[in-house]
Amino acid sequence: MTIVGELINTSRKSVKEAVMNKDKAYICNLAAQQAKAGATYIDVNCGNMINNEEETMAWLVNSIQDEVDLPLCIDSPSAAALDVGLALCKNGRPMINSISDEEERYDSVLPLIKKYDAKIVVLCMDSTGMPVTADDRIKVVRNLHEKLSNEGIAGDDMYFDPLVKPVSSVGTAGIEVLDTIKKIKTDFPDVHFMCGLSNISYGLPNRGILNRLFVVQTMTLGMDGYVLDPTNANTMADIVTSKALLGLDNYCGGYIKAHRRGLLI
Amino acid sequence: MTIVGELINTSRKSVKEAVMNKDKAYICNLAAQQAKAGATYIDVNCGNMINNEEETMAWLVNSIQDEVDLPLCIDSPSAAALDVGLALCKNGRPMINSISDEEERYDSVLPLIKKYDAKIVVLCMDSTGMPVTADDRIKVVRNLHEKLSNEGIAGDDMYFDPLVKPVSSVGTAGIEVLDTIKKIKTDFPDVHFMCGLSNISYGLPNRGILNRLFVVQTMTLGMDGYVLDPTNANTMADIVTSKALLGLDNYCGGYIKAHRRGLLI
Repeated sequence: MTIVGELINTSRKSVKEAVMNKDKAYICNLAAQQAKAGATYIDVNCGNMINNEEETMAWLVNSIQDEVDLPLCIDSPSAAALDVGLALCKNGRPMINSISDEEERYDSVLPLIKKYDAKIVVLCMDSTGMPVTADDRIKVVRNLHEKLSNEGIAGDDMYFDPLVKPVSSVGTAGIEVLDTIKKIKTDFPDVHFMCGLSNISYGLPNRGILNRLFVVQTMTLGMDGYVLDPTNANTMADIVTSKALLGLDNYCGGYIKAHRRGLLI
Repeated sequence: MTIVGELINTSRKSVKEAVMNKDKAYICNLAAQQAKAGATYIDVNCGNMINNEEETMAWLVNSIQDEVDLPLCIDSPSAAALDVGLALCKNGRPMINSISDEEERYDSVLPLIKKYDAKIVVLCMDSTGMPVTADDRIKVVRNLHEKLSNEGIAGDDMYFDPLVKPVSSVGTAGIEVLDTIKKIKTDFPDVHFMCGLSNISYGLPNRGILNRLFVVQTMTLGMDGYVLDPTNANTMADIVTSKALLGLDNYCGGYIKAHRRGLLI
């Protein structure tokens, strides 16, 4: 299970303030908290710092790496910012979030995957826009898997993001994602998944329970990677419990350990 | 979604005491609470009253029907007790729990299904004993679906119970059940499911979270019926939420209603 801790994102007000104030201790603490809670990567996203994204990325990456040894997920719509962040990564192989089958994005990110031997989050999106059905998504997966494989990138390094849309606007938004996962698992058993799920609950009250149960549902179909807040104890308890139920936890050892630590709330 | 409220069962100490004391108010209250919480059937089980099961069954069925209008699920290993309970049912078509492909059980319960035009819970078990793999279960499902269909029983009236075993003893116990559901949905799209899930957590601490998430997992694969405690607010919140995520709740109306009632905890 790959857990990318999402908290270091300048779209969060407190993080933006910390960046503005060069409050390194705040950023380091966020990194440490996420590592302690079970993150396997730390996401670094300062995509809304339009005037100085590259400088901010460099400062964040260096700050985080002074605190934790986890690999980073460098997350930006800008290839230049990705390049700056990736060049500084020193904790194992980094992850890039993300590539898609939109021509400009594909062409600008592909060289970075190779240059830094990075793992890559692959959005199920092409120039025709956001997908609707599972079949729309699988068509993009098929194209991108072939193109990236031809570039020598291993399936094991690809993390497909099915792109979650709100169930409040289209009732089938959830099951289309679940179907996508099932089909990817069948047709491309070597690849992984990576996804932020909170879009699923957009527009509805009490979003936490929707987000949490959508993690459980997607894990049931084989999803193995999430961008989320690992310091949310409920979510992490659900993940530990789901693993035990799905036979992904030898002798339920992880579950029993979490219980002893009082984490199963 | 079919929810069979499980609380009226003499294996529960308080229910047994109420039966011994002919405390009709206690039984009526249990029935009313379950109906209010969203049960669609009320289970009636006094299988451990070995000396007077039939008499107890009659008293329970009459008592419950004086209180609620829900149909009943008559639940017993004894065909004679089933017969007594079924004969008294007056709230729509009753359900029988259960038939299996064990010869004696099959032969004794089949006539009752026909006599009372009952819905039937079908255990995935034959004379070779408890199943282990999904394939073991599907073999039994195939046999029983054919035999019952030949007797004129509609698939829509069959509720297959995949028989849940503890994940603590065999790590694959959960995924074998999930695979069974998937295969039944594919091969027999007309049938339903009915299952008590709490066995899944036997032998592990903090059983509630395992039971609840196994409901979510099994619903994700298409399970549509449970024997459970509907007064457990967490479980019912999970079911309402899962339905919204799975596109089984028009415009998320049930979810929003549950939110307004403060039920999404």
